[in-house]
Amino acid sequence: MADKDKLISRSEDYNEWYNSLVLKADLADYGPVRGTMIVKPYGWTLWENIQAALDRRFKATGVQNAGFPMFIPMSFLQKEAQHVEGFAPELAVVTHGGGQELAEPIVVRPTSETMIGHAYANWVQSYRDLPILINLWNSVVRWELRTKLFLRTLEFFWQEGHTAHATAAEADERTRMMLDVYADFAINEAAVPVIPGEKSAMERFAGADQTLTIEAMMGDGKALQSGTSHNLGQNFARAFGIQYLDTNNELQHCWTTSWGLSTRFVGAIIMTHGDDNGLVLPPRLAPYQVVMVPIYRKDEDKTAVLNATHRLQQILVEAGVRVKVDDRENLTPGYKFNDWELRGVPLRLEIGPRDVENHTVALARRDVPGKEGKQFVSQDGLAHTVTALLADIQQNMLAKATRFRDENTHDVTNYEDFKTAVSTGFARVWWAGSDAEETRVKEETKATIRCFPLEQPGGSGVCFYTGKPATRQAIFGRAY
Amino acid sequence: MADKDKLISRSEDYNEWYNSLVLKADLADYGPVRGTMIVKPYGWTLWENIQAALDRRFKATGVQNAGFPMFIPMSFLQKEAQHVEGFAPELAVVTHGGGQELAEPIVVRPTSETMIGHAYANWVQSYRDLPILINLWNSVVRWELRTKLFLRTLEFFWQEGHTAHATAAEADERTRMMLDVYADFAINEAAVPVIPGEKSAMERFAGADQTLTIEAMMGDGKALQSGTSHNLGQNFARAFGIQYLDTNNELQHCWTTSWGLSTRFVGAIIMTHGDDNGLVLPPRLAPYQVVMVPIYRKDEDKTAVLNATHRLQQILVEAGVRVKVDDRENLTPGYKFNDWELRGVPLRLEIGPRDVENHTVALARRDVPGKEGKQFVSQDGLAHTVTALLADIQQNMLAKATRFRDENTHDVTNYEDFKTAVSTGFARVWWAGSDAEETRVKEETKATIRCFPLEQPGGSGVCFYTGKPATRQAIFGRAY
Repeated sequence: MADKDKLISRSEDYNEWYNSLVLKADLADYGPVRGTMIVKPYGWTLWENIQAALDRRFKATGVQNAGFPMFIPMSFLQKEAQHVEGFAPELAVVTHGGGQELAEPIVVRPTSETMIGHAYANWVQSYRDLPILINLWNSVVRWELRTKLFLRTLEFFWQEGHTAHATAAEADERTRMMLDVYADFAINEAAVPVIPGEKSAMERFAGADQTLTIEAMMGDGKALQSGTSHNLGQNFARAFGIQYLDTNNELQHCWTTSWGLSTRFVGAIIMTHGDDNGLVLPPRLAPYQVVMVPIYRKDEDKTAVLNATHRLQQILVEAGVRVKVDDRENLTPGYKFNDWELRGVPLRLEIGPRDVENHTVALARRDVPGKEGKQFVSQDGLAHTVTALLADIQQNMLAKATRFRDENTHDVTNYEDFKTAVSTGFARVWWAGSDAEETRVKEETKATIRCFPLEQPGGSGVCFYTGKPATRQAIFGRAY
Repeated sequence: MADKDKLISRSEDYNEWYNSLVLKADLADYGPVRGTMIVKPYGWTLWENIQAALDRRFKATGVQNAGFPMFIPMSFLQKEAQHVEGFAPELAVVTHGGGQELAEPIVVRPTSETMIGHAYANWVQSYRDLPILINLWNSVVRWELRTKLFLRTLEFFWQEGHTAHATAAEADERTRMMLDVYADFAINEAAVPVIPGEKSAMERFAGADQTLTIEAMMGDGKALQSGTSHNLGQNFARAFGIQYLDTNNELQHCWTTSWGLSTRFVGAIIMTHGDDNGLVLPPRLAPYQVVMVPIYRKDEDKTAVLNATHRLQQILVEAGVRVKVDDRENLTPGYKFNDWELRGVPLRLEIGPRDVENHTVALARRDVPGKEGKQFVSQDGLAHTVTALLADIQQNMLAKATRFRDENTHDVTNYEDFKTAVSTGFARVWWAGSDAEETRVKEETKATIRCFPLEQPGGSGVCFYTGKPATRQAIFGRAY
């Protein structure tokens, strides 16, 4: 049960607001091993809704799910040079099994490209076996030193997609297709207005030729990388020997991709929409879309109010609305209001003896605080009223978050303005710097290239940092 | 793609039939670490259907899902004496993380009772926090020496439910409720006629007061434990301090349960229904319920046949039928028939130029081989014909498996008949033996008490082994 102490305000301490909200809203708890996370039922139901929204999009593109082992021979990691360099420092290593020391140490997967490479090399013989389009819902382990619930944990839950293709063009198309899936999901299900773009060479996945990303702006103006799609070229195919006989009976290496989105996205939802009263969950993903609070003081009202509550609950459930009835005894309506506000339920329905009499209910929107968000409506056509309101809340949340992002994104042309911009949000700039210059900007301002947006203005400009002519704009920001 | 060499027959070598079928039907493959398993998309889709059928049953009883870490401090395992004794020999141990040796070794969960005990102790304060009804879909690791795909692997996929209650009666009721869920699922979704019963003290889960089980008979007469539900009494509550203040404000220990069903159940489906031509999958769980094979020799027939195929596909999909169209080029219809028989698709729909003309299709049942299972039907009302046939196949599979089990279950009253019975199936006997006598029977016959069936004849009898008066019947069998 949530501790009812008031949340600290976001402006006072954003970091502390986030940490205590995750705990108080019953989304997650700390696991006993440092850096691990327990996702509690309320948080997991949110994750299940995220999974369902992604899974049906994946399947619509021909992807099927599979289950791969968590244990990878240490030697696999060493087969792709950049990959091992990227992941070796973060590995968890199993050295003993069944009471014996193992001949070869085993790592718990930090990601499965190597295991997939091994399997696909066995499975693919001819062009007829391609493409392979597989996704895994699982968890992976990366030995992070600084952890934060949902955003960066030692073990995290995610999906990792892995595809193999006959041609570079197909791999390219798939890399982009899955980014589009992520962007569509983020915008239309989570109301998180992400910017789809390409990572700079320095920020690429270890072993990829290209990394695409969706980048979101959190409520404190910082960036959160929210999903990535990698074109792995022939790097893993060469390292693991994924080869096929083409239509001319000649042996070719495959082209592969991988793409992932994790429980980190729960953090994106919290920090995009949350306010000083707690979570604000998008209706399409919220575990409960409507919480019903029956209100009565006298015992003689109780039956009538509860009967009406359950009748209306039934009507909403039949209309496909996810409903929670809070009929806990010994708690005041005010306590319940605060509790469900903290948990971000999009719509609160109150019903008391006078509502029963008048055939009305009160509806209070989570996204519009106070009286402005409250209305009294007839019980007639309630399912329609509620579903229309939920759709409106979803739209409003996206519009509000987009406005916030746009207001905090500045086109700048010099370093001073750049520094001001990234202290509160994003800087959009022309960029023609080298890797070394990108690193220097990071050291000096803590801001990194979040992405080169896919949507570019065209033409060219002057790099704000080097003064060189530039053909691409980049979004810079400080990131989680 | 499946290797098209003929399967070995079940009578020739049941073990080899099973192993090669799992590989040839594309259900699973071996992982690179000894004893691990890759569940391929066809096998995983079957598992997803199993998950969905169980998950909605769990949720109907008030259970919610959550996500728990895979890493458990070694010290947790040692808190419950019987539990550590049962699981210590099978642990995988992480000794290094992030390049450093760990101060305390970590184990990869073999099951999560200890981690759950730790969390519930933190979460539960008063009777108002009870019951806690949580389920986890995850994978666990047990360092098994003899492994077999699906039946016993080093890592396996499963669900583990964990509940905490205020009273012994509630825990007792929940233990039985979840066994009933498993039995209902097995019988009505998988057409596997399991026997629900209670394990003997020797076969109980490590740390449980009572273990209930569903036991199935495989095609070779051996038993497969297919799901278990444990009443843990106050053992874990005491070990981990799960306590609550009751309505009198007195501190009490909780009563807990746990219950699990794993990818082992895929093995149960294979071995309950499979025949010499391959898998036979129950329609309610089959990844594809109908495979459509368009048949044409001349190019001028192709368009008409494919058009009709896709039109009928649409009709079936709209009726909620899971359909696969096999329009692979360069493969003969005969090859495709064998391929989908191997993969156990319940119903094959063939359509050729004459069918297009006559507005008919041919339907071939997987559960009734040859001409007897084939019929020509009108395209009119096809959705109805198909759904009725699928329901009939489901029923027939259950009836056939039940008949097989009953024919191979013998009521015996002496040790000679007992030995004969357990060499080909189950022996049902009155039992009043001690643990030592149970062990001796196992050593002498390889048969163990699979369960004391919940359904008992009543009254009493004479123990077949000790000659003592007995009040319970037991089912003995050799087990996987």
